[in-house]
Amino acid sequence: MADATAANTAVPVQSRDPAAIKAVITALAAAFGNRLVTSQAVREQHGNTLTWVPNQPPDAVVFPQTTEDVQQIVRICAGHGVPVIPFGTGTSLEGHVNAPLGGVSIDVRDMNKVLAVHAEDLDCVIEPGITRKALNEHLRDQGLFFPIDPGADASLGGMAATRCSGTNAVRYGTMKDNVIAMKVVLANGDVMSTARRAKKSSAGYDLTRLMVGSEGTLGVITELTLKLSGIPEAIASGVCPFPSVDAACKATILTIQSGIPVARIELLDALQIKAVNAYSKLSLPEVPMLFVEFHGTDASVAEQSQRFGEIASELGGGPFDWATKPEDRSRLWQARHDGYYAGRHLRPGVSAFATDVCVPISRLAECVNATQREIAELKLVAPILGHVGDGNFHLTLLVDMDDADEVKRAKILMERLVELALSMDGTCTGEHGVGQGKMKYLLAEHGAPALAAMASIKRALDPQNIMNPGKIVTLS
Amino acid sequence: MADATAANTAVPVQSRDPAAIKAVITALAAAFGNRLVTSQAVREQHGNTLTWVPNQPPDAVVFPQTTEDVQQIVRICAGHGVPVIPFGTGTSLEGHVNAPLGGVSIDVRDMNKVLAVHAEDLDCVIEPGITRKALNEHLRDQGLFFPIDPGADASLGGMAATRCSGTNAVRYGTMKDNVIAMKVVLANGDVMSTARRAKKSSAGYDLTRLMVGSEGTLGVITELTLKLSGIPEAIASGVCPFPSVDAACKATILTIQSGIPVARIELLDALQIKAVNAYSKLSLPEVPMLFVEFHGTDASVAEQSQRFGEIASELGGGPFDWATKPEDRSRLWQARHDGYYAGRHLRPGVSAFATDVCVPISRLAECVNATQREIAELKLVAPILGHVGDGNFHLTLLVDMDDADEVKRAKILMERLVELALSMDGTCTGEHGVGQGKMKYLLAEHGAPALAAMASIKRALDPQNIMNPGKIVTLS
Repeated sequence: MADATAANTAVPVQSRDPAAIKAVITALAAAFGNRLVTSQAVREQHGNTLTWVPNQPPDAVVFPQTTEDVQQIVRICAGHGVPVIPFGTGTSLEGHVNAPLGGVSIDVRDMNKVLAVHAEDLDCVIEPGITRKALNEHLRDQGLFFPIDPGADASLGGMAATRCSGTNAVRYGTMKDNVIAMKVVLANGDVMSTARRAKKSSAGYDLTRLMVGSEGTLGVITELTLKLSGIPEAIASGVCPFPSVDAACKATILTIQSGIPVARIELLDALQIKAVNAYSKLSLPEVPMLFVEFHGTDASVAEQSQRFGEIASELGGGPFDWATKPEDRSRLWQARHDGYYAGRHLRPGVSAFATDVCVPISRLAECVNATQREIAELKLVAPILGHVGDGNFHLTLLVDMDDADEVKRAKILMERLVELALSMDGTCTGEHGVGQGKMKYLLAEHGAPALAAMASIKRALDPQNIMNPGKIVTLS
Repeated sequence: MADATAANTAVPVQSRDPAAIKAVITALAAAFGNRLVTSQAVREQHGNTLTWVPNQPPDAVVFPQTTEDVQQIVRICAGHGVPVIPFGTGTSLEGHVNAPLGGVSIDVRDMNKVLAVHAEDLDCVIEPGITRKALNEHLRDQGLFFPIDPGADASLGGMAATRCSGTNAVRYGTMKDNVIAMKVVLANGDVMSTARRAKKSSAGYDLTRLMVGSEGTLGVITELTLKLSGIPEAIASGVCPFPSVDAACKATILTIQSGIPVARIELLDALQIKAVNAYSKLSLPEVPMLFVEFHGTDASVAEQSQRFGEIASELGGGPFDWATKPEDRSRLWQARHDGYYAGRHLRPGVSAFATDVCVPISRLAECVNATQREIAELKLVAPILGHVGDGNFHLTLLVDMDDADEVKRAKILMERLVELALSMDGTCTGEHGVGQGKMKYLLAEHGAPALAAMASIKRALDPQNIMNPGKIVTLS
């Protein structure tokens, strides 16, 4: 039997070793030819650009085409104690793909095939480099779709690695709920299958869920079996203004409590609406607003829409205008999805950073209100967007990086946001992941025993600490 | 920081040490008084009675009342290298609570409180010993319920430990989907919180999902935060006969593909129907039958029922009679839930063993048909019940244990059933768990790298191998 702990006594990689890196690059060049790239520009592009954390480029980037390629790369790197960092589309937000100890970025862009679609089973088998839009394009003719939609057109491997979600999560769940099985190359070069294709199983530890959200620190995902959904017969959506964030949150709670199977329910605060109006040429009232969507049959989406409208009205919200025409719906949701870019346009030229927290929904209004007060007190500009059905919301922090005082205040805001969320039994990140940016909060969030357990698991599966080191947990 | 690997170099417990056990019993008696029981009858009752595996009673049974009690028990046992075996209601089916290396059974029956219900967040915090029926009794006044329903009135701790599911899983998911967070006493006595109460999180490894299904081999669950659902406004259910297992399975696939949010869809084969008719005084046609249930509003359950009826009719099934009156529904589902007892009455006096597998739903008819052929060839009696929406089905194997040849044929059937499921990309157990009974299939199902990863994780979190040893994985 393979033994993932064979190297248990090895000294974990804690610093960059130039000789080892040189040896790895030589070996990879021999094996992969021009699929190994070491140019400065490509290396920097494979560090991270969407976070506070400074860019830390890898020493080389390699483009595998098969699981066997990934195996070979990992074995070469493991042989020299050199880190490997899996890379999808580079749209992660917390420094997930930086290379603080150097090493080799494994860019899976060429592993982008749909290997099988099992329409009767509502699943598909794919390679990790395919993006969600490309997958949905492929599936459309069969009346199927993959519902998880982070803002970016991310790769499915990256989405699994960060346990991402998005606007549909309130109905369809997150990546943890929509990955059935994976192939993963482990630190020792073994290829592990986490599960069979059956819809459920009680056959041992849930390796699939352990890998989802592990951010490349336990292995490199080379294949995914995903749960699919049928494209709904009918979709209705609309926007609904509310007198306050409180009222919008209460309407959300009542909607979910009433069992209305809302597919999307998104909160935009007044500032975010202002940004959306300017960017997307809309004329919505500049008050807190819910964007909602219902999936079902013609009759059921009409019933859901009507019941939601009644709830909104009870809470002083409305009018709720809903539409089932694709073009009307598309315009609305395009505006919602452009929320990040719209936010940026509030202060053209400055930097924009997205951060997220998630709290129990009963505490959401309180958390959003307190956050708005902090933003005002710190004299910052940061529109708020929320996947309110999950208690999850985002800030787009607009920061002039040349203004040291403003940068300092922005950092204070990010700390306070996490403190607020944790004080309400929430989490420091609902869907963006830990990366480098949120490691410092994990002890406060999880406590020492959980963090020690994570470190034990990391050490057990990656004793050399070569799998995306410096993310999630540190090994002492 | 706590260190779960402090004892990493300790020799794992591999055999019973009478002196150590004596020392543990002395220490526990001093601490717990008459909450420590060592009588033969109580010890045997805490071994396993619902499986092929012979009863292997623990050396003592202790009844903690708090997490701190469990901590103290684990610390005493760890100090002497004596196993601990968590015990809920003892309704597991694969020898999960047997004590092959002796040790102490931790019976959590007195830890049965509901600690909090957060109606707005649709969650509750409970102790592990409360059973699902007691929890639902507690929740009813608030219009809430916990949907996971294995046949037995199991404890929620045990249900989480075995990653169980049941008839509602097709709509509401399994325990993996309905546990938000847990408190777990680890092998070193630390109390780990696996997650916050937020509905979703990307903050590190998914310790919740790692513990769900770990069958007490990684820690003892002492608290659970569970996702709740609102009691539906309207429920419709009914039975529908089909000309063949194939037709019933095709109807199920079409129902799910059409996006009909069926809450329950259960297959009973002709023999199981015969058993149910006799036991529950019904007069259903003795052909393959689907029991279905729809949750929603009055209008939506009517629409769902009608659409299901049309699908059934297209496949030669029907008539589909559905009812929304509670007394009619209750009678039907009582008959379904009594399926196991009904099965037993086909051959009064012999032993009955339940076993389960799960395959992709597209292969289900083929798997059930092949299983029926095997049953006939082996001259056995084994009615079939299936959670057909998940591709999961059960045999109730009726075996005269005094007939050595029949016992041998029954064992052959169980092997063939698993071989069949694995050959169809299925799993050796959809919801019963591994325990002792299905350990031998894990290598064939998962492959060596996955099994080695499971062993690494077990070793990392339980280096002495004291947490329910001899289940799921062996440590070499």
